[in-house]
Amino acid sequence: MVLEFWFEFGSSYSYPAAARIERLSAQRSVEVRWRPFLLGPIFQAQGWNDSPFNLYPAKGAYMWRDLERICDELGIPLTRPSVFPRNGLLAARVACRYQDQPWVCAFVGAIYRANFADDQEISESEVVRRCLSNLPVDPDTAISESTTPDSKARLRRQTESAKALGIFGAPTFAVSDELFWGNDRLEAALDWAENHVV
Amino acid sequence: MVLEFWFEFGSSYSYPAAARIERLSAQRSVEVRWRPFLLGPIFQAQGWNDSPFNLYPAKGAYMWRDLERICDELGIPLTRPSVFPRNGLLAARVACRYQDQPWVCAFVGAIYRANFADDQEISESEVVRRCLSNLPVDPDTAISESTTPDSKARLRRQTESAKALGIFGAPTFAVSDELFWGNDRLEAALDWAENHVV
Repeated sequence: MVLEFWFEFGSSYSYPAAARIERLSAQRSVEVRWRPFLLGPIFQAQGWNDSPFNLYPAKGAYMWRDLERICDELGIPLTRPSVFPRNGLLAARVACRYQDQPWVCAFVGAIYRANFADDQEISESEVVRRCLSNLPVDPDTAISESTTPDSKARLRRQTESAKALGIFGAPTFAVSDELFWGNDRLEAALDWAENHVV
Repeated sequence: MVLEFWFEFGSSYSYPAAARIERLSAQRSVEVRWRPFLLGPIFQAQGWNDSPFNLYPAKGAYMWRDLERICDELGIPLTRPSVFPRNGLLAARVACRYQDQPWVCAFVGAIYRANFADDQEISESEVVRRCLSNLPVDPDTAISESTTPDSKARLRRQTESAKALGIFGAPTFAVSDELFWGNDRLEAALDWAENHVV
């Protein structure tokens, strides 16, 4: 039973999803595949040059309050980032390059906490480097390996795959060709992985 | 403990919400107040002249599949309406006029089933009249009472109230000034009503 977790580092609701997916999937013996992608190109194709949470203020006001409630209930810290959405390109390249490594979840969690708990500028390589420390990889090597032409192309292709799958927002959980959009659909996606996939 | 259920008859995800809210709220002793409104003016203020599910095809394709899964799980019928979104103005005027009557949930459920299970044109007064049959009200009287200038103004005011509350989509559940948007947040709204409201 495999569930693909499609996420974007600038995406607010991806933060609680990333924080709880390992625990919930382990309870059900579902294997998570971490699939970072970029929402920018997908939003642009929909005619948006910014997050819908900025374009539509009522939606944005709701999201920040809702996220606050969700994080409170999960017991994870939230500080509204002073820049939103942050550019997660470098972090996404690293996560994509190493997405099948067992430590990727720790790296992803560290980037999300940097952005949404500590209000750090995750587009800066120094912040990404810090999020790679204490992991079984050399941070400088990881960053240079993630910014080769091949690694850049890999993230572009993965973003194209997201679009081809029909993904239009993050987080999205994919179980074979079934999509579940939004942090609040994680349980439904896990149920599907348990009950409908042989 | 009171929960306001803000819904629009054209809204697809309001259908499963309306189908399950009575049962779920009764289990927790939460009182539901039915609050029909019109999404059209709210979408227009966001610059949309159609449902986002039509404007953004990937979002629309996802929604129809997601709704199918949700209705399957609830055991309620779904036929993708041949017209979407349908104009629910007349039905909303009736629901608004009688929103505090104990039979309003039966009327609302009948309209949703007409739209999303039987693919009927709910903008037609004949369909609205049929949905009023078997209720403790005379259908013709109800329709004429719901289309007086006063009743029309009442729905306009209620739509203005929705906007003032910060509502940007349907269904939305309001517990005092806390909003929960989307069928999948009904449980969270009920939890809030139980645990945070004295």
